[in-house]
This record gives sequence, C-alpha cells and structure tokens, in this order.
Amino acid sequence: MRLMEEKILAEGKVLPGQILKVGSFLNQQIDTALLAQIGQEIARLYDGAGVSKVLTIESSGIAIAAAAGMAMGVPVVFAKKHKSSNVDGEVYTASVHSYTHNADYTIVVSSDYLRPEDKILLVDDFLANGKALMGLSELVVKAGATLAGAAIAIEKGFQGGGDALRAQGVRVESLAIIDAMDDNGITFRPQ
Amino acid sequence: MRLMEEKILAEGKVLPGQILKVGSFLNQQIDTALLAQIGQEIARLYDGAGVSKVLTIESSGIAIAAAAGMAMGVPVVFAKKHKSSNVDGEVYTASVHSYTHNADYTIVVSSDYLRPEDKILLVDDFLANGKALMGLSELVVKAGATLAGAAIAIEKGFQGGGDALRAQGVRVESLAIIDAMDDNGITFRPQ
Repeated sequence: MRLMEEKILAEGKVLPGQILKVGSFLNQQIDTALLAQIGQEIARLYDGAGVSKVLTIESSGIAIAAAAGMAMGVPVVFAKKHKSSNVDGEVYTASVHSYTHNADYTIVVSSDYLRPEDKILLVDDFLANGKALMGLSELVVKAGATLAGAAIAIEKGFQGGGDALRAQGVRVESLAIIDAMDDNGITFRPQ
Repeated sequence: MRLMEEKILAEGKVLPGQILKVGSFLNQQIDTALLAQIGQEIARLYDGAGVSKVLTIESSGIAIAAAAGMAMGVPVVFAKKHKSSNVDGEVYTASVHSYTHNADYTIVVSSDYLRPEDKILLVDDFLANGKALMGLSELVVKAGATLAGAAIAIEKGFQGGGDALRAQGVRVESLAIIDAMDDNGITFRPQ
C-alpha cells in the first residue's frame, strides 16, 4: 500500500534498537483518513475470503481492527491481556512472550465471541517476531474456528515473524513490509 | 440514540453491583454496523463545533473514538494508562481514580499531539462517576487547548458524573443515559 509506505517515510522515526516510532499517525495519534483507507485495503485484500470476524489484541490494534471490521461489515473481537493466567469464566487463553517487555502475558477471549463456525481474520498494527499473531492463532484453534489469515499495517520483515507464519501456510498480508532500516533509511520489500 | 437504547435492552446484561455488561456489541466484541452509526451520530452532534481532535483513553474507548474521528475527519489521540507517575519525555499527565479497581492510575499523552490551538472532543464508551473524563479534561487544560465537550456511548446517569460535569458547564452528549437499572429492567433518561 503505497500510502502507508509514504507515511512511514514522511513521519516514521527510526530509534536505536530497530524501533520504528509511528506515534504521529498510527499509535498515540491516529490519522483517521489513513485509517479509513487501511480498513478499505484490508477489506479489498480479503474480499471473497468468507471472513466472519476480525480478531485483535488490545490496545494498539483496536483502531485498525475497527476500521477493517467496518469496511468488511463484520464484528470485531479483541483479546484482552492479563498478567496472570487466572481468568474466570468460559474463555480461551494463550501465552505470548513480549520481547519489548521481556515478559510473558496471557491473552484471553470469551468463548461467547469465538465460535466453531467463525472464519477469523487476525488484525494488528505491527508484526515483528510474530508471537502475538501466534497467540491469536492459538485462540482460533482452541475455539475450533477457521483462520482466514492476518492483515498487518506494518511488518518488520527483517525480524522474520511474518515469513515464518507464511512458511506454515498462514496467509499474511502486510500493508508495508520493512526489510531493513537504519540511520541511512528504510527499505521496503517490493509487493 | 434509539438504536443504542434498543441494543442495550436486547443484549445488555445487568450484573450485581450495578454493572452493565455490553461485551457482545461494545466491548470485547464490537458490532461494527452500530459502531459506524455511533461515529456518525457523534459527528452530527458536534457538527459546527470546530473540533480539531478526538481524545480518548486506552483501551475500551479507542474503537468509538476511531469511528467518531473517521466520521468527523479529524485525528484521534489516545492517552495511555501508566501505573506509576514516572513518565519520560515531554508529556502531560493526570491522575485518575478507578472505582472498579480501587486504585489510582496516571494517564499520559505526548505534548506533540495536544496543542494549544486544538479544540478537543473527549470520547469514551462509559461515563459513570466521571473521573476518567475529568482526567482527560485536565490534560486538555495542561496543553492550553480548548475543550469542545464530551461524547459518550453509555452514561450511567444514576452515578452522577455526567450531571456534575454539565453543572460545571462542560457539554456532555451521551447516546444513551441510564437513570436506573435493576433486576426489573433499565430506565433511560428521555433525550
């Protein structure tokens, strides 16, 4: 998606530790014209795929998931993060390792909202090592639902998570894939 | 907003402790057709009010704020929750008391995203005692920006926060206001 790449080049900031800061348009502040186009593009990519629900994790994926869900006309479900694995009620849980915080957390979704008949599209803002997407996929498997694939705003291709998932046969569509970034600039993977 | 009241009556669950569970359409799972209409209704209510940005708190307000921002054509900013008040960088902070968790937390927003020239609309899913909205208003004041008002999906009118803010001259628009709820049913305030 050319607009996403242009926005990253214009406003993204590369920080030490290969961190890409996009707080001015995708995280702390959201450019809603871009957000609407992200939703439309995800709907276009998964047109005809039979998606019945969008699933994301709180909190930075919610706006993108909401835009995608509105464009596709399907509900959005978001998994919550818990520090402990003690969760009451009829829920599905998965453990996710966060490299950013060097800690594990549990993601939780009510069994009311993920059903065996659902075909699920995973949506998130970033894809790096893929641990969050793998956790969400685990929830889909536990619910007996079907995975349609994943749609990501920005993939850090050089961290390998996206390609590992593709190698497992998961459809992963990223609106921009960064293959390298450093002080000299950002290199996108041709799509 | 009649559709919101109908949805609450059809799918909302009143739990002990005067908790209203709307997880099937507004929280853990989001009805995106309803969400789009919420965005349009907030845009209609604040049409001509000169709103330049929508401000919310992570995470349950984000989807509604995104829908409102898309309908109004303005950016959305979200304040983050921190457990400590130690936050680096150029930020504005405010302390908010959570009755749900019986604890204080700090909300934080970068000074890059709230500017003195901004006219801010606060958006959230619920308004009960009003502590979250008061914290967000404090961020607006600290930034030297102007408060246009607040737009809320569901106000628990019987908890008084909305009316206390109105008494202070703050414009508060709630799509549904619940004046009473118990085992016998839910009473909405006529609007």
